[in-house]
Parts: sequence; structure tokens; C-alpha cells
Amino acid sequence: MVFDDKDLRPVRGMKDLTPEEYYPMLQVFDKLARVAESFGYLRVETPALEHYEILKAKAGEDVINEIYYFKDKAGREVGLRFDMTVPVARVVSYRVDVPKPIRWYYITKVWRYDEPQHGRYREFHQFGIEFIGSSSVRADAEVLTVGVEALKALNIGDFRVRINDRRIIDQLLSKLGISNELKPSVLRVMDKRGKVPDDEILRMLRDLGLSNDTAQEVLRLANTSEGIDKAIDSFKEFGVSDEFIKYYSELIDLLDMYGVRNYMDLDMGIVRGLDYYTGIVFEMYVPDYKLSVGGGGRYDNLIEIYSGKPMPASGFAMGIERLLEVLEQRGSIKRAFPQIDYYVYVLGNDRNYLALGYRLAANLRARGNKVIVDTGEKSLRSALEYASKVNVRYFIIVGPKEVSQGVVRVRDMSNWSERDVPITEFGINAKGE
Amino acid sequence: MVFDDKDLRPVRGMKDLTPEEYYPMLQVFDKLARVAESFGYLRVETPALEHYEILKAKAGEDVINEIYYFKDKAGREVGLRFDMTVPVARVVSYRVDVPKPIRWYYITKVWRYDEPQHGRYREFHQFGIEFIGSSSVRADAEVLTVGVEALKALNIGDFRVRINDRRIIDQLLSKLGISNELKPSVLRVMDKRGKVPDDEILRMLRDLGLSNDTAQEVLRLANTSEGIDKAIDSFKEFGVSDEFIKYYSELIDLLDMYGVRNYMDLDMGIVRGLDYYTGIVFEMYVPDYKLSVGGGGRYDNLIEIYSGKPMPASGFAMGIERLLEVLEQRGSIKRAFPQIDYYVYVLGNDRNYLALGYRLAANLRARGNKVIVDTGEKSLRSALEYASKVNVRYFIIVGPKEVSQGVVRVRDMSNWSERDVPITEFGINAKGE
Repeated sequence: MVFDDKDLRPVRGMKDLTPEEYYPMLQVFDKLARVAESFGYLRVETPALEHYEILKAKAGEDVINEIYYFKDKAGREVGLRFDMTVPVARVVSYRVDVPKPIRWYYITKVWRYDEPQHGRYREFHQFGIEFIGSSSVRADAEVLTVGVEALKALNIGDFRVRINDRRIIDQLLSKLGISNELKPSVLRVMDKRGKVPDDEILRMLRDLGLSNDTAQEVLRLANTSEGIDKAIDSFKEFGVSDEFIKYYSELIDLLDMYGVRNYMDLDMGIVRGLDYYTGIVFEMYVPDYKLSVGGGGRYDNLIEIYSGKPMPASGFAMGIERLLEVLEQRGSIKRAFPQIDYYVYVLGNDRNYLALGYRLAANLRARGNKVIVDTGEKSLRSALEYASKVNVRYFIIVGPKEVSQGVVRVRDMSNWSERDVPITEFGINAKGE
Repeated sequence: MVFDDKDLRPVRGMKDLTPEEYYPMLQVFDKLARVAESFGYLRVETPALEHYEILKAKAGEDVINEIYYFKDKAGREVGLRFDMTVPVARVVSYRVDVPKPIRWYYITKVWRYDEPQHGRYREFHQFGIEFIGSSSVRADAEVLTVGVEALKALNIGDFRVRINDRRIIDQLLSKLGISNELKPSVLRVMDKRGKVPDDEILRMLRDLGLSNDTAQEVLRLANTSEGIDKAIDSFKEFGVSDEFIKYYSELIDLLDMYGVRNYMDLDMGIVRGLDYYTGIVFEMYVPDYKLSVGGGGRYDNLIEIYSGKPMPASGFAMGIERLLEVLEQRGSIKRAFPQIDYYVYVLGNDRNYLALGYRLAANLRARGNKVIVDTGEKSLRSALEYASKVNVRYFIIVGPKEVSQGVVRVRDMSNWSERDVPITEFGINAKGE
């Protein structure tokens, strides 16, 4: 049984991560984790599989269609999680012992049966935070700030956070005479803004039964995008109610205190694909990259759906693969093997020299080095070639002539210079012990 | 729609990892990663889903029955990986550009539809290494040594590595007149040794058609267990051929050079459940814990099955959940929240004090601290209670009286002592900027 090359490739829409691809990702994980922890968030993890009922409860039609769904051997309906907000909400629903508010973060995989394309994978990694148990505008400001600080920590260059509010859109659509039944469809069309031409948006809105005037108004709403400082004026112009004007005045002030206000835009076309959002929603964008690199918002009803008890919550998630694509485009990160500090090569088959090589390697490891010991299957020349390919820093040759003089030969692989180094420098005495 | 408590629990056989459970695991990951990297192994990751054909190619009947299998929306037969050796072998089969030998490690999740019980989960984490492209006994010695050093790094206390060899068992079963067709069934019975009484083993062997004498001989073989130093004598007694005696003499010598020989036993009952092993096989055990905490061996044919090209390989995997159970039993690790360094509480609603609190928190974060800022929804008393529960070290009160004197009040949560600390110590000037 031999497989075709195509059978050996990963499942469509998924990626194998060899070291040169995985280490840059691990670096990104590390930076994001540090930011989340600096704000007091703690890392959690949940199973890849969830009961299908849990997943579909508040996902929204589009995402439900993307769930990897199946029945296990006992007939249980299960699915691979499509995000971490739903599993975290489930955990919080039964783990009533956890002190509130809860600040949790995650860096893990999620799965969506989407059409694979640039920036869209069927398995991908998400970093995100969930702030559960606070309905304060301060919680929203904190969540937005963690998002900004995370992107800054990655050295991603310019980016914008585009903010909108589900409640405000809901209110304004009502004012336009759009029924609650029709709103989800209208939101779905608004979400297409920027991806399809305005004419097309108008046609889709009219197809939903909106008059031409109403469709124009919805389009004007979706196209309202400006610096956050002008948000209050826009809200007043659209006739948004006072409670939201107060909320956003306070939010803008808090973002100012956090020093992140200048990253924010109002963008009334941002509605988010997931059904569980109930208040502020936002997405992060970088110039010259079409897809959002992250997004989130407030979801005050999700946990109640599971537990029956009200529990306000706010959070965001970022797509790690997209961040990596941007970081690579901008030259902020390079695919590279991590360095191996030493490669130990023993000439000949003498047991004593081999033992010396192993001892030397062990001592170098004890000092925190990454050390490969050759297996004796390569010529010196081919071992040197190999060491060069796998990014070795120093190549140590343990040879009879050198050892008899109490030294080993050390080649600096960066410039191919060689020098003899006393074995005592590697913690080995003159007897080779 | 409200869910029952049982619907909110994770899928049967799987676990939610809240911070007090996940941080000890992350610590274990970190220690294991360091050991693998110190031997020059690099971390890799592959998709959770694999083509079913790839998974079942060399898994063995028992494991095939445990695969989470389903068809995706396009009718593709896929399954959740049951180990990482198979995916890594697949990657190596088409990534012919990767310089050989390959030293890779992984720390990731695998899935098996097994009957959930103590130490057996349907989703669990594995740490493991794969050394691909060397057929040298030195590679096997290295793999065993990394396993030993990994367990030592965890501070797990006593443990044993029980070694056997598929080729030797094959040879000895042939000598007993057992046909190649019957061998897999005989191996499966041998694998039950220690789990069921000897009488039962004998009965099962006779049920396979073995004579009573042959069954007794197979049982004697399965029960041969002793320090590795006596292995050569046992092999000679059983009439094992010279090539294997030479191999094991050399292996024992190499393990001696590595300083790990004393952890090794010969155990001719160790056969391993997976079909892909071709040479040395081994399992790691700790006293008073019935299940192996790890195991591995040489699998020289697996990659050839995928690629059509011979490629020797050796490796092991450890079960992280089992390691954690042992470490907890032995008191080497404790479930605990990581510490939050500071909790900043602002008295009243004055914007200036709030801004001061945020600035102070930002400065503490910039110095590497984990800092929570209160959201203004808790009384001072309840904030203090909360801070105590979530393991806060210092509780900072930003109050009008104190700030007017240029200080904030800092409570040490470990002993509830309080002192006033000048705001300048937090990088804030007398103007509160």
C-alpha cells in the first residue's frame, strides 16, 4: 500500500506545521499570552469536541453550516468547536464556583468547514479573551485595550479597530420600519458591505422587500465609518437614544485613559457573523489585508441560554494564521529554524571517544544548550553539510589527535572558523571524565 | 432553551481545563519541551483530522476501533488522530526536503474512543519525540535517554523503562512453532499479561490453538522481566540470534554512557498495542500506578507504507494526563491559580482618580506584572474578598485622601498588612501623570 502524494497532504483546508512554520507561531503565542496575563487573564482549554446542541444554540445559520458534525460510536451528536466563546460560556454555566468576574484567555485550535482560500482555513488557531461577569463599560474598554496591546506587542504596524453596536443598529433599523423578523437578513446584507459593490447591496436589500428609500438609508448606515471621536455626533444625527450616547461618551473617555483611543473607528457596517452578540461589536483590520485579523464584542445572553442565569460577558478572538500572514508580509517575522547550539561529531568508533562525546554533550545541555550528537552514520563532510542545513551554531569534532592533547576542535558554523578548545572548558577533566 | 447540568459537562471522556488544572499542565509541557529541545528536537504540529486511510494503514485492529471516524460534508472519510507518530510519518513522506535525520517533538492532543476510566480519556495530551532517518542503535539509545531525562525533569520520583523487541519475540514465537498468521493474536494475549491472571492467559493461548506446552512457554516468555544487565544472559538462554545479542550489548553500553542504564528493565511481556513497531519497544512505569505513563519503539516500515521509500524511525510518546495524576499523587505538583501581582481599586467615581489607577496599572504591566483593574461594580470589601480568592499578591487602593498626599495604599494580601506607597514609586509624578 503506497499513497499518492495528494493523499499524503493534510486534509483540505488544514496545514502541517513543520518547525520553520511552527516556531514563528509559537513566538506569536508567547507574546499574546504575555499581554493577556499582564491584564490578569488566565489560560484555559476545553475539548475539541462539543455536544452539537451546545454548538448550534447561538451560532447563527452561517456558522452552523460550517460545523464539523458527526455522531460518535454511541450515537451522540457531536461537533468540532468553531470558536472558544461557546465552550467557555458552557464551562462557566456549570462551574458556578469560579469567582466572578472571570478573566480567561485561550490560544488553541478551532474548526470551520469553510471554503478554503487565502486567510481561510478549516483548522486554524485562535487567541482570545473572555471577560465574564461584568456589564460595565469599563469591561468593554478593557477588552478593547487588551486587543490593541496584543496587536502592538506583535509589532504588526498600523491597524484599526472598527467599532459598532448591535443595540444601536437594531434601534436604527426599527426606526427605518424594518421588522424584527427581517433584521437578521438585513444584517447579513450589511455584513457584505465592502465585499460586494454598493449597487449589489441595494439590490439585495430591495430583494428582501425594502423600499428603495429604506435600502438607501440602510446603505448609508452601513457606510458610516469615521474616527471614533466623531461617533457621538453621528449617533445624534441618526437619532440614537441617550443611553447609548452616554455609554459611548464614557467608553471613548476610558479608551483615552488607556491610551488606545486613536486606534478606534466607528464603522456602522460592522455587524459580525455570530448570533450571540448583544452590544458593542468590533473587528480589527490592518492596511492591505482584506480580512479582519480579529473581532469580538459583548454577548450578555449566551451564558444565560446554557445556565438559565443572566451573566454579562465581553471578549474577542484573533486569527493566528491571519496575523502570521500579515507579520510575514510586513517582514516582522521570518520562517526560520530555531538554532541548534552544538553538534557533536565523534571520529572513529573508539568507545572512549564516544563516551567523551556524550559526556560533553550532557554537560552542554546542563548549561541550557541545544545539542545534537551524531549517530555515526555520516561522514564528517556530510555531517557538516547537515549541520549547516539545520542551523547549528558550533560543530564540535571529538578526534583522537585532539583529545590526546586535551582539546576538541570547535567550528563556528557562521564563518567556518575553527579553534581547539580544552575539554576542561566543557566540564571534563584531563582523564576525559 | 436551558440545558441540563449533564449537557453542560464536557463530552464523555473529555475534560475542561480551567486555570487551576491547566497551569500545572502548562508547566509540565514547558519542562518536557526543554528536555526535547536540549537534545536538538524541534516542535511540530499537524491537523487534528487525518484522512481515515492514513490513520488505519498501520494502527492495528484495537486502535482502529477507537478512531473517531466520520465523513465530512464533501464525503471525505476522515478521523481524529489517535497518536502523532502516524501524522508525523505522513508529513515526512511528502516533505522530502527536510534534512535527515529528523528530530521532531510534539505536545498536543490526540483522541481515542476508549472506555473512559481512571487514566483513560477520549481526548488527551501527548508529549513525544520522533527520530527519523537513522537505523543506528545510537538513535534508539538517544530516544530512550530523552524519555528518561523527560521523566527526571518532571521530578516524578522512581520509574522504570521496560524494554522488549518485536523482532526477538517474533523469532522466539517462530521457534515455538507459532505461525506468522497466529502471531498478532498471540501478541495481543501477551499484552494482557499482568492485567489478567496467568491461568486466564494460558486459557486464551490454548483457545488460539496452542498446545499446553507451547502456551506455558509463551507465558514464561511474557513473564521474563529483570534488570537490563541480565538481558543478554536471558537472550542467550532463549536462543536469540547473534545479531540481536550484539545490538543489545551495544545498546546497554550506550545507555551506560548516557547514565540511564539503571532505569532499564528487560520485560518480554511488553509488546505494545500499535501495529507499526518493528524492533525495540518499551514502556515507562512508575510504582503504584498501573498504566504505563509512556511508551515507544522503532517503526522502520511505517513511513515506507506511505511513501514507498524505506525510512527507519524510532520514538516515544507520553500521556500528559497520566503524568499529572502521578505528579499530583506524589505531591510534586499542586493545582493552583497562578498569582496575580496587583489588583487596583479606585475609590469613588472621580475621573482623575480612575485615570491615575489606569496609569499606575499600565506602568506596573510595563514592568512585567500581572495587574487587574477593578471595574467599579464591587464594594471595597467585596473586591478584597475577590482578590483573596483569585490569588492576588498586592491590593492597591487609589483614594482621594491618599492621592492628595501623593500616595496610594498597598495591602499585602499574604498578611493583610498595609502601607502607603508614594505614587512616584509607580512611575507617576506628583501631578498624577
